[in-house]
Amino acid sequence: MPSMMTTEKFDGTITTADQARKMCVIGNRMLANDRVLDAFGHVTVRNPERPDTFFISWATSPAFVTLDDLQLCDFDGNILSDDKRRPYGERILHARIFKARPDVNAVCHGHPSSLIPFFCTDTPLRPLTAGGALFFEGVPLLKEWDPESGVHIATIAAGDSLAEALGNGRAALIRSHGMVTVGDCVQILCTVSNSLVGTAATQYTVLQLGAEPFYLSAGEAEKAVETSLGAIGIERSWNYKVKHIKEIFPDIKDLFD
Amino acid sequence: MPSMMTTEKFDGTITTADQARKMCVIGNRMLANDRVLDAFGHVTVRNPERPDTFFISWATSPAFVTLDDLQLCDFDGNILSDDKRRPYGERILHARIFKARPDVNAVCHGHPSSLIPFFCTDTPLRPLTAGGALFFEGVPLLKEWDPESGVHIATIAAGDSLAEALGNGRAALIRSHGMVTVGDCVQILCTVSNSLVGTAATQYTVLQLGAEPFYLSAGEAEKAVETSLGAIGIERSWNYKVKHIKEIFPDIKDLFD
Amino acid sequence: MPSMMTTEKFDGTITTADQARKMCVIGNRMLANDRVLDAFGHVTVRNPERPDTFFISWATSPAFVTLDDLQLCDFDGNILSDDKRRPYGERILHARIFKARPDVNAVCHGHPSSLIPFFCTDTPLRPLTAGGALFFEGVPLLKEWDPESGVHIATIAAGDSLAEALGNGRAALIRSHGMVTVGDCVQILCTVSNSLVGTAATQYTVLQLGAEPFYLSAGEAEKAVETSLGAIGIERSWNYKVKHIKEIFPDIKDLFD
Amino acid sequence: MPSMMTTEKFDGTITTADQARKMCVIGNRMLANDRVLDAFGHVTVRNPERPDTFFISWATSPAFVTLDDLQLCDFDGNILSDDKRRPYGERILHARIFKARPDVNAVCHGHPSSLIPFFCTDTPLRPLTAGGALFFEGVPLLKEWDPESGVHIATIAAGDSLAEALGNGRAALIRSHGMVTVGDCVQILCTVSNSLVGTAATQYTVLQLGAEPFYLSAGEAEKAVETSLGAIGIERSWNYKVKHIKEIFPDIKDLFD
Repeated sequence: MPSMMTTEKFDGTITTADQARKMCVIGNRMLANDRVLDAFGHVTVRNPERPDTFFISWATSPAFVTLDDLQLCDFDGNILSDDKRRPYGERILHARIFKARPDVNAVCHGHPSSLIPFFCTDTPLRPLTAGGALFFEGVPLLKEWDPESGVHIATIAAGDSLAEALGNGRAALIRSHGMVTVGDCVQILCTVSNSLVGTAATQYTVLQLGAEPFYLSAGEAEKAVETSLGAIGIERSWNYKVKHIKEIFPDIKDLFD
Repeated sequence: MPSMMTTEKFDGTITTADQARKMCVIGNRMLANDRVLDAFGHVTVRNPERPDTFFISWATSPAFVTLDDLQLCDFDGNILSDDKRRPYGERILHARIFKARPDVNAVCHGHPSSLIPFFCTDTPLRPLTAGGALFFEGVPLLKEWDPESGVHIATIAAGDSLAEALGNGRAALIRSHGMVTVGDCVQILCTVSNSLVGTAATQYTVLQLGAEPFYLSAGEAEKAVETSLGAIGIERSWNYKVKHIKEIFPDIKDLFD
Repeated sequence: MPSMMTTEKFDGTITTADQARKMCVIGNRMLANDRVLDAFGHVTVRNPERPDTFFISWATSPAFVTLDDLQLCDFDGNILSDDKRRPYGERILHARIFKARPDVNAVCHGHPSSLIPFFCTDTPLRPLTAGGALFFEGVPLLKEWDPESGVHIATIAAGDSLAEALGNGRAALIRSHGMVTVGDCVQILCTVSNSLVGTAATQYTVLQLGAEPFYLSAGEAEKAVETSLGAIGIERSWNYKVKHIKEIFPDIKDLFD
Repeated sequence: MPSMMTTEKFDGTITTADQARKMCVIGNRMLANDRVLDAFGHVTVRNPERPDTFFISWATSPAFVTLDDLQLCDFDGNILSDDKRRPYGERILHARIFKARPDVNAVCHGHPSSLIPFFCTDTPLRPLTAGGALFFEGVPLLKEWDPESGVHIATIAAGDSLAEALGNGRAALIRSHGMVTVGDCVQILCTVSNSLVGTAATQYTVLQLGAEPFYLSAGEAEKAVETSLGAIGIERSWNYKVKHIKEIFPDIKDLFD
């Protein structure tokens, strides 16, 4: 019997630096409002006019980021903008992922609390519901990296280790520290990030119960991803959040025009 | 000794399509505000003027639904309204339940997080308090359905499987996915939906403790249902929420006149 | 060495029916705002001008109670006011406690979720911190009562069973249902109610950890009660909440004059 | 490879009594808004013009503290201000720590709920993430003190016991009661206090899972502390909160000028 689910793909392609800068601000605000980020963490967006660079805020909190806060950064972590404000120490995390993954146009790094049980132990994330299907092939956990970098990802070598751990995936965990998520646009990045946070919360809750969880089958996961990343899934959750964002951050209302 | 509890029944009967459309909007807003629903999920209401059809929004979030968003749908999932907006892929879930259950006039489908432990494992829901008494006979868990449908209920066959699992009950769970609740009116649907969510949270909390739970007896459950679904229970919780809804969604204030 | 804690007693004595009515409204709003109560539950206050009666709202939610909603009730649950609005079915719970406990001037009945593990299992509440010291002698759990009453306390016999279980204590639990708390004034009732809720949350959290809890000694509990029910404890928490109440419920601001 | 993290130190030195009084008000509001404190708890600041005294509010809630509420207190708990308002019974806790720790200029005492599992059992706090690195050498738990003092720290002897338990550390727990945190300025005190609360929440969550936690190594902890207490860490979290504080407590906006 034919399914009534729409299979139309979501297309978030952007082509100008101006669009990328707007989406970078919006992405930071979105994921701050979703509490994927707090005082710390960052969303970055590749510059489509110069794809070996990306937009990133100077070292302020994601909830505060405006167009004026953005700097242009290259794959070695050099700030190309004429801007003396202190950059994030972990900009290199974004840089090395943009270098390794030409398909990725948006990156998020944060430390959401629901993920703690999964980056502070060896418990693998496994999908229990449609949201988790995005991570059916597993979320790699980077355990060791350049010791000079400390628990942060703050050297080129550490950034490369993370990019390698991530591989072709949508997300990776960093031991004792946090997560990174990627998307081909900010809309998909937000869905991926929120789904990762939700998947961890779901699995933690179910594991607490002690009963045998029903994990998704490969076929179920595949179909669920079509829906989650399809136009119907991305647009509904994006529009839902845009409405809230405009109320909570009226200063960026114009960016949605 | 005579009980001082009122045993008067609640009567939420409506007779016009206009009333049904208003109650459909209110039901979506109510359960969105109760967080039974979020960006996803839907409340539908049978059209009393044409009982083989029901009102359902096009594919937007329940918190946004207005009278203008409603479409008329038949039992095969056909949208009868002249309206090109994308319908929900899972409208057939509602359709097949309205077909199978002539006593039901309102249906809710959602994915509230407190239910996750109960639709992602085989742990049966059992009532511990008055709210749970509505589910004394158990909440069936649909485990397998039309594989074409994926984890969603998006084909006629999947919808029929769910309607069969639901039987004459007030609620059913869908493995790896969510829940469906039904009522003879929106007011009762809201109480049933919130009670299901609360019952799951209660049982999860108690199971965590490891001590032997006191489950309700059949006699206690029967009396508790009389109260919960009686005029005193439904009206008090409905009025409590209407006050909040009017503040939170001032755009639908007029629907309550 | 002398302790620097103040040992002055709190005195919340009131002498007029007018004061009692005001405190009844305030008590309902306070404990609704504290989420000890929700759409359901009630706070009642003895009428000092006619001590075999007490003030209780008709069957509306505690967050809505105004002076105009109050009815006068006797120890058999008769409504003495000329008022046709439906009374609470459980008014007899309050009535029989006021009858059995001449020292009590305020009673609260509710179903706060943190208490669920303690009224749905046989796990005894035991104090771990100063707040819990109020319940050092234990919180009795009423397990069986007049079957006609159902899970509610809705007959004179059920009310008497609860009053007997309560004895000279500050709180009692009702199996599968909820709690009752008492105080010699509304200020103390609020502290007792919030402390009971907090004590349960504390103990549940600690029990989850599996490590051996440090329970208070009798001497520590005794000193802690002096502080909690002393002027310094009651006044600080009362003033803290009054400020919030005035903001949240501006319609009752005048009651505090 | 060189790390891109900034290693610049944060300097919160103040030199006037006026600055100390402002920071005392701000510290109380900050930690009340962070829910490290509630109706109870206090933040105090050493008077740089007379270092054997410190500023402390009279016995009101920290969310209410204004410049007019502050009293000057000496190391024996004497109130030196001409002010008849009731002082906190536990002012001696602050007094004896300021006496024992000349390097400390700000002290916080509170009872945040995430710490309950760690002060009501013998479970040691151990750092799992960068925030916890501040407590890598352990958080001492004071188990016994002057019995005259009850569960509170309300005598000179009890205060001295706590100061001794604290030693050169950043935080100590008080059995059955709460915590104390210290800093060389209010900004660092706030980071230390929030990190302690977060560390406990993190560890509790991870312990619940039952899997072996990855604790930080000494080298990782050392590097993480440099970042957390460095200018970049303190300033970002401080600025993030100042923005919220100004919105939530407009009455103290001027203190930030």
